[in-house]
Amino acid sequence: MSDLPPLVLLTDFGHRDAYVGVMKGVVATVAPTLRVIDLCHEIPPQAVEQAADLLAQSWAWFPENSVFVAVVDPGVGTDRRAIVARIAGRLFVGPDNGLCSRIAPETTEVRELPHAWGLALRSSTFHGRDLFAPAGARLANRSVRFEDAKPLADFVRLPAAPEGTVRAVDHFGNAITNLPAQNRGFVRWRAQCIPVVRTYADGVPGTLVVLTGSNGALELAVPGGSAAAYGVAIGDAVEWKP
Amino acid sequence: MSDLPPLVLLTDFGHRDAYVGVMKGVVATVAPTLRVIDLCHEIPPQAVEQAADLLAQSWAWFPENSVFVAVVDPGVGTDRRAIVARIAGRLFVGPDNGLCSRIAPETTEVRELPHAWGLALRSSTFHGRDLFAPAGARLANRSVRFEDAKPLADFVRLPAAPEGTVRAVDHFGNAITNLPAQNRGFVRWRAQCIPVVRTYADGVPGTLVVLTGSNGALELAVPGGSAAAYGVAIGDAVEWKP
Amino acid sequence: MSDLPPLVLLTDFGHRDAYVGVMKGVVATVAPTLRVIDLCHEIPPQAVEQAADLLAQSWAWFPENSVFVAVVDPGVGTDRRAIVARIAGRLFVGPDNGLCSRIAPETTEVRELPHAWGLALRSSTFHGRDLFAPAGARLANRSVRFEDAKPLADFVRLPAAPEGTVRAVDHFGNAITNLPAQNRGFVRWRAQCIPVVRTYADGVPGTLVVLTGSNGALELAVPGGSAAAYGVAIGDAVEWKP
Repeated sequence: MSDLPPLVLLTDFGHRDAYVGVMKGVVATVAPTLRVIDLCHEIPPQAVEQAADLLAQSWAWFPENSVFVAVVDPGVGTDRRAIVARIAGRLFVGPDNGLCSRIAPETTEVRELPHAWGLALRSSTFHGRDLFAPAGARLANRSVRFEDAKPLADFVRLPAAPEGTVRAVDHFGNAITNLPAQNRGFVRWRAQCIPVVRTYADGVPGTLVVLTGSNGALELAVPGGSAAAYGVAIGDAVEWKP
Repeated sequence: MSDLPPLVLLTDFGHRDAYVGVMKGVVATVAPTLRVIDLCHEIPPQAVEQAADLLAQSWAWFPENSVFVAVVDPGVGTDRRAIVARIAGRLFVGPDNGLCSRIAPETTEVRELPHAWGLALRSSTFHGRDLFAPAGARLANRSVRFEDAKPLADFVRLPAAPEGTVRAVDHFGNAITNLPAQNRGFVRWRAQCIPVVRTYADGVPGTLVVLTGSNGALELAVPGGSAAAYGVAIGDAVEWKP
Repeated sequence: MSDLPPLVLLTDFGHRDAYVGVMKGVVATVAPTLRVIDLCHEIPPQAVEQAADLLAQSWAWFPENSVFVAVVDPGVGTDRRAIVARIAGRLFVGPDNGLCSRIAPETTEVRELPHAWGLALRSSTFHGRDLFAPAGARLANRSVRFEDAKPLADFVRLPAAPEGTVRAVDHFGNAITNLPAQNRGFVRWRAQCIPVVRTYADGVPGTLVVLTGSNGALELAVPGGSAAAYGVAIGDAVEWKP
């Protein structure tokens, strides 16, 4: 087992149903010794762009050869393609809707996921179970090879997000922007100028501060509180000033 | 490790406490190399029937020899029995309250779970930790055998759900019925006649459609939205019309 | 793999972001064959004391040699120390803020976690990823040894909670006190005297009862309901009377 890479799951399936569990049942059937890691299952329903951002901030922390199965799939059951991309030594399996486009350089090798790598029967509503999980498990398990799939000339790319935007609000109420790291200056949000500090503890408890977050981007936070509770929200415009 | 079947957990314990984690600690103590899969821990508190339905829709996706530990247990601490059933090559461990009765044919072999397969000390409130997890781990680990438990003549069966009922509402707001798959016609819900379509994308965004869900039953959905937000709820009557 | 102890994670990171997943990615990179168990990730943000209580009630159910990584870390980025403690044959890794002090006897061996056990680069906001997860993984994987870290003369201890307090309210709405087990008498909460019973089923459905919970402390519960819905809350004073 130790020489197989992990299978990493990212979905919008939540935790109240059996959808994620059933995907793992299929993986255990197809590749009994594979290690499965949950990246996140609480992407808001069908929020492809949020999933793409989260994947972009996370993939590099997983070992080379990891196989990611990302299923946020509003087009399930239509003729949208199913793909596997190879990026920086990892494989990314999922619907062709841009999920891995935020981490895919121009030259990314993308291939069409063969139906035969899935289960024999396929529903119209749950390709995570019927195609993506078993295909990812077979790739991680090395019973099929990326090279055996048909190369594609192109794949769906999400438009780049405009710089100076709040891209995510996390569990703590921190608002993560796509402004690059800074160790001084201010961030303008609405009518406010918010100082850049080094750590949460450098701020005044209960007031907004800006600091470089763990992904190397600026984030708005409230030490001991929540920037979200101040009204900072996904999509808000922000600007750094020296 | 690779030759041991997985242990699959289904509970109403939620994620905010340590209950599920502690069950896994006991499993790791009793059977250190066992693989544990979470089927679902967000069954509403003490909703035995919902857990039985979820189990019925999920078990077949797990490999043969899997051991399921299902703990939704309003009678914990009383003299309700603890059982293990063998169904289609899998084992189902839990309280005798009907949890696996929706998947158990007439001829199901059911046995009484021996106290000795649990921990030495037993609380009155947490048999998931004290009995069901360690007994399931020992069965999966093959340190005890199903055949060594005492056969039971009967076990608790839930009444069949009336056909034409919404049985579950999932994370996406889809309302899963127990009406069999159809590819045409309508479903009547309250005063509405809702058309059967093939995929979410075949519906008009924002309006109710019906399609065959991943379990082979009809479900009510709103493409890009939520049937639950339209008021569709567990227990609602539904009827298919050609 | 079977001879390595599990790595057990306890955080306040929740499930909606990739924080826990990324920690597991780092663990898979540092120690590919290690087994990871989630103890709990739904500690309220920065609630060090609740995490310390939960850890105190949980650790003993995990096998000897388990390595716990506990990250509830309001002081991340400051000069608060990072420590590893050895208690009852287990290792506890985390910030020096009292997280494991509720289980640490006077004579506990505590050492300073070397920077070198973490990743080469360290953020100011996510030491779970950058230091605690990789250090814990290396300890569990035996690529570093507890004995190689520098002994500390002291570490942060939380003040003892006053006896006769509701310490936690769980997913079911049960209110867990720190009053020792009893099988008779009453508990006074506000103006009410609530009878001690043996099991949930011994109470009158819908009314408050007290029973000995799975941790050996008295808890207030409502059979078929929720004590929390009655207004019982963390911090409430309670008193047992014969």
